[in-house]
Amino acid sequence: MPELRKDPVSGRWVIVSTDRGRRPTSFAVMERKLTGGFCPLCPGNEDKTPPEIMAYRPDCSSPNTPGWTLRVVSNKFPALRIEGNLDKRAEGIYDKMNGIGAHEVIIESPNHSELLSTMPLKNIEDILRAYRERIIDLSRDKRFRYISIFRNQGERAGASLEHPHSQLIALPVVPKRPLEEFAGAKSYFDYKERCIYCDIIEQELTERERIVGENAEYFSLAPFASRFPFEIWILPKRHLSAFEQNPDWKYTFLAEIFSDTFQKLDRALACPPYNYMLHTAPLNSPNSEYNHWHFEIIPRLTRIAGFEWGSGFYINPTPPEEAAKFLRES
Amino acid sequence: MPELRKDPVSGRWVIVSTDRGRRPTSFAVMERKLTGGFCPLCPGNEDKTPPEIMAYRPDCSSPNTPGWTLRVVSNKFPALRIEGNLDKRAEGIYDKMNGIGAHEVIIESPNHSELLSTMPLKNIEDILRAYRERIIDLSRDKRFRYISIFRNQGERAGASLEHPHSQLIALPVVPKRPLEEFAGAKSYFDYKERCIYCDIIEQELTERERIVGENAEYFSLAPFASRFPFEIWILPKRHLSAFEQNPDWKYTFLAEIFSDTFQKLDRALACPPYNYMLHTAPLNSPNSEYNHWHFEIIPRLTRIAGFEWGSGFYINPTPPEEAAKFLRES
Repeated sequence: MPELRKDPVSGRWVIVSTDRGRRPTSFAVMERKLTGGFCPLCPGNEDKTPPEIMAYRPDCSSPNTPGWTLRVVSNKFPALRIEGNLDKRAEGIYDKMNGIGAHEVIIESPNHSELLSTMPLKNIEDILRAYRERIIDLSRDKRFRYISIFRNQGERAGASLEHPHSQLIALPVVPKRPLEEFAGAKSYFDYKERCIYCDIIEQELTERERIVGENAEYFSLAPFASRFPFEIWILPKRHLSAFEQNPDWKYTFLAEIFSDTFQKLDRALACPPYNYMLHTAPLNSPNSEYNHWHFEIIPRLTRIAGFEWGSGFYINPTPPEEAAKFLRES
Repeated sequence: MPELRKDPVSGRWVIVSTDRGRRPTSFAVMERKLTGGFCPLCPGNEDKTPPEIMAYRPDCSSPNTPGWTLRVVSNKFPALRIEGNLDKRAEGIYDKMNGIGAHEVIIESPNHSELLSTMPLKNIEDILRAYRERIIDLSRDKRFRYISIFRNQGERAGASLEHPHSQLIALPVVPKRPLEEFAGAKSYFDYKERCIYCDIIEQELTERERIVGENAEYFSLAPFASRFPFEIWILPKRHLSAFEQNPDWKYTFLAEIFSDTFQKLDRALACPPYNYMLHTAPLNSPNSEYNHWHFEIIPRLTRIAGFEWGSGFYINPTPPEEAAKFLRES
């Protein structure tokens, strides 16, 4: 059973695997290459993944057979285990609990080489709807406090499989980064009685210097204090705390801005590796006036070095104003 | 002039370069290779670096000529500029100031291929003494609030030069990560009236399961909530808030534990890339009862992916107890 351990000074949680599978010596070889050849996520290989949790099957085909356009399965090598109790306990000065949680893989397309920039809009809509469905389903499990949805594109961004997929991790604690964001946004709200993201949105949509793309409901933004070159956020124009509360008709607009953003990124930077993460409300307070869900996209173009790790201070060689302009013109 | 920009939600600071030197298109090619051939940090090439700020010259040779055993120069491509005023100002909802600070390079040895694991103890002592000298000198500049000292070893850890060197950045604000640590340690102190690090040290030196190496004054530890495989901290056994307050005689002991730690790491993991960072007190409160300076070493063995970026939650496949045992036996 993996363990959740808390750093007593910073309050940061870590999932420590206690499986003995990976020997320390295996780290001497460091480079992980994307597996060529056989792909367990491709149609026809459904028996190589754990059984599907949900799937979109326009042809009404049977579970765990080909015919799907999107498929969600448990991660074969989960960071957390779904069964058991948290069993929170001390170890002297330290706090820990069992590594309980869900770790799922959203297989986004049957097409092994599809990119978000090449996918049909309907396909992207389905991915976003699948995110919502899984959040709603998992939020019924009262052990969970937060659901993290993320996507790793390319080996440099930590992907171990090339086939297009996102991942979901349901956690029994709210992680540090979202907690910090909620605290910052709440402190602003307590002072101004306004959502800080709504204020940012108003300023950005007026100035327009950092806007990358836009439609009636959503827009993409190179944020003012971008940590990384070409960092982009996708935000809803109207206040909404939790991602899963997006009404159904808005997913078409969201898919459109996703498609636009990744087309621009892939054109401008020749299909860069990237990570994106959904930032949404914790499960026990989905209706806050101060949280405002959004996606953060980080192209992995520069290396993170000691200064950034030690300080949490970033050096960004590309002003977001320039990045936004370059992307708009791509 | 670079700009310091603050993310209004998280409070995180970013140095945004406004130099137009690096065109967006240059990011399409991503891999940075360590430069082979000519090395601007090698003896004989002193005129290829900015003039030296200090040097250890046992032969009393002239500044900016060979003969040095250690040399400190300004970074040729500084992230921050030393001249000017902070000029703190608003840009609508946002906060920014001029990118004022110092960015120095500590050239640790005249020997291009030296590693911390192969360096004579005296050489390591000199590096640690140079850290102290630079902190004491820069702390006289009242614009600075924090000094970050770090080392990037290997291309995967963000090093752009192979020659052994550390870096120093003096900042006009205390960065987020140290601020969080001070807050966590202070909250523990307010409750217990004890330093949290001192309590950790007592528990660890009793249990011994996560100790890597030890002498009379310092020890190395695989921390309980290690974020990364083989993460190691080096701590002083006795409470001390600021690194530069180490009395002179202790540097021999500190050099010894440095040498021991990097010998073990290089043997166990075949000279892995790594970052280390000094965590020390802010310049305006060097004598706190709750801060306890230490080094954090992060071997760069695994990739950081979307989950970690989005959540600040880490997945560590190697329990620190196993890592410590493996290193002790290396």
